[in-house]
Amino acid sequence: MRVLLLGGLGVIGRATTEELLAATDHDLVVADTTASAPTPPHVPYESVDVTDAGLLTSLFERTGPDVVVNLAALVSFPTIREHPVRAADINLTGSLRVLEAADAVGARRVVFGSSKAVYGHIEGSRAHPEYRPVVESDVLAPRNPYDAFKVAAEVTGEAFAAEHMLDFIALRFGTIYGPGKNSRHGYSALFSRFVEAAVSGGPEHVERGGDQGDDLTYVRDCARAVVAAIEAAPGTAGAFNVATGRMVRVRDFVRAVRAAVPGADISIGDGLNYADETVSYRSVLSVDKAREVLGWAPAYDLATGVADYVAFERSRVSSAR
Amino acid sequence: MRVLLLGGLGVIGRATTEELLAATDHDLVVADTTASAPTPPHVPYESVDVTDAGLLTSLFERTGPDVVVNLAALVSFPTIREHPVRAADINLTGSLRVLEAADAVGARRVVFGSSKAVYGHIEGSRAHPEYRPVVESDVLAPRNPYDAFKVAAEVTGEAFAAEHMLDFIALRFGTIYGPGKNSRHGYSALFSRFVEAAVSGGPEHVERGGDQGDDLTYVRDCARAVVAAIEAAPGTAGAFNVATGRMVRVRDFVRAVRAAVPGADISIGDGLNYADETVSYRSVLSVDKAREVLGWAPAYDLATGVADYVAFERSRVSSAR
Repeated sequence: MRVLLLGGLGVIGRATTEELLAATDHDLVVADTTASAPTPPHVPYESVDVTDAGLLTSLFERTGPDVVVNLAALVSFPTIREHPVRAADINLTGSLRVLEAADAVGARRVVFGSSKAVYGHIEGSRAHPEYRPVVESDVLAPRNPYDAFKVAAEVTGEAFAAEHMLDFIALRFGTIYGPGKNSRHGYSALFSRFVEAAVSGGPEHVERGGDQGDDLTYVRDCARAVVAAIEAAPGTAGAFNVATGRMVRVRDFVRAVRAAVPGADISIGDGLNYADETVSYRSVLSVDKAREVLGWAPAYDLATGVADYVAFERSRVSSAR
Repeated sequence: MRVLLLGGLGVIGRATTEELLAATDHDLVVADTTASAPTPPHVPYESVDVTDAGLLTSLFERTGPDVVVNLAALVSFPTIREHPVRAADINLTGSLRVLEAADAVGARRVVFGSSKAVYGHIEGSRAHPEYRPVVESDVLAPRNPYDAFKVAAEVTGEAFAAEHMLDFIALRFGTIYGPGKNSRHGYSALFSRFVEAAVSGGPEHVERGGDQGDDLTYVRDCARAVVAAIEAAPGTAGAFNVATGRMVRVRDFVRAVRAAVPGADISIGDGLNYADETVSYRSVLSVDKAREVLGWAPAYDLATGVADYVAFERSRVSSAR
């Protein structure tokens, strides 16, 4: 199949490119906003911006995708708050432009990168200490602009696809860790900070949060879910949690990094809510639906995910020297 | 105060213009998308489109508003489903452009026309037969694109205003009836159809729905709420239901029209859900918060609202002859 991957230079985009090249024989075109990019050999790269309908249309006409994967998004919370027009234009209207352009060239599927953020504030039995798994049919109650754009993109995408010959699949990614995560990703960069400190030998001590439970998803599992969504049977549509379905504590993550890098000078204190969030997104996501419908299941647990990430980080640091 | 009214030619916009002229001495500028409009004498009219940031900026710089009332919206559900990019660009990003432009010229308040639609599907004790009043702190759970854009505009507007010297007030209007409502407003045009049929002498018989309860708000009460929001004390912000706080049945509305137009050939059958909606928005909205904080309360009950609407419709029909 011809697969067009938008936002292909982001965290999940890069992992998806690797996964597609390693495990499939689809014709892949990677697109993102920079003028050029060092994509792997034989993978064409296109510069595009989802805020520009003309550019999008021309790209879609040139590449004629069967499946479009849309991972293009503005993820910096401060930028979203300070520039709401631009944020809405990328994260919501951009997603809708992609749908209209996909429909116009006869693509049969759009896979949209959504987020656990659609569930909004996690409280009651879904929160600490119970962590009852969040299921896809739970109410979508956005509390922040980022959440609200994701919800609007899902709801509107579904309504549009229902009236067109288009499968719309939304993947609601949990808390992601892995290569490429950095400070622009806000709170979830915590996990990268521990890995980077461990590998570089620097200290990283966080005062509070070790008891906080979360559903930590390795980015390569996200990429595998994107591939499963690309390849799912015709007519497959809807929203799917992509996580592990298991609660781990932040302390467990720090322990796993120390196991992979003995002697690492990293630690986290007791307590919850390491990031002083007023809206909590810390929860466990049921992955039963993705397992049943997409035939996908997470392949990495905390030990193997962290070990893979540490290996990547070691090779990145040594090649930078 | 200098008041800039965007979407001033819509249903609530026209009523707001009348209310502002009759009851206040603010300097009013009316803006909407048509090139020109027969606004009342001495009320300047400006053509603008909230999808055009340049036009907006220039309008805001020319008029220097203290308060901006943003009632600009695409309300046709079929158009929203079929043209989601355009719908998002008007209903969400347009609202955010207004906020950024208002902030840039030092306006102190934006009053945003929101909707009961933010509450999404009404079920459980808030639905038939209990109709427990919906309060502003209830969960916002959008189910359709229109809902989702309103929620995103509220959530994002609040986040933006919190970081700027700007009061953001969202008025969540209930089911509105009154002059100007017509078929482009979807389901809620039912009430106009009864009034128009009664005045013109034509028949209007609806098979089902007389038992359906709703909170029917006369458009002049919406306009009075906008004025209250314009004039509320500095620092007033947040979301407010604008409705009556009382349940009436559609049958009661039909009776009120017959009382105002004896012999009217109109009727509605028993049962619920006259419009076959799969998502129900029929509920009662508590107006306690608007009463306490804005000092506003509905002035029209069903009898006086319908009588006023019938009088308007009679004068419209006779002047058209």
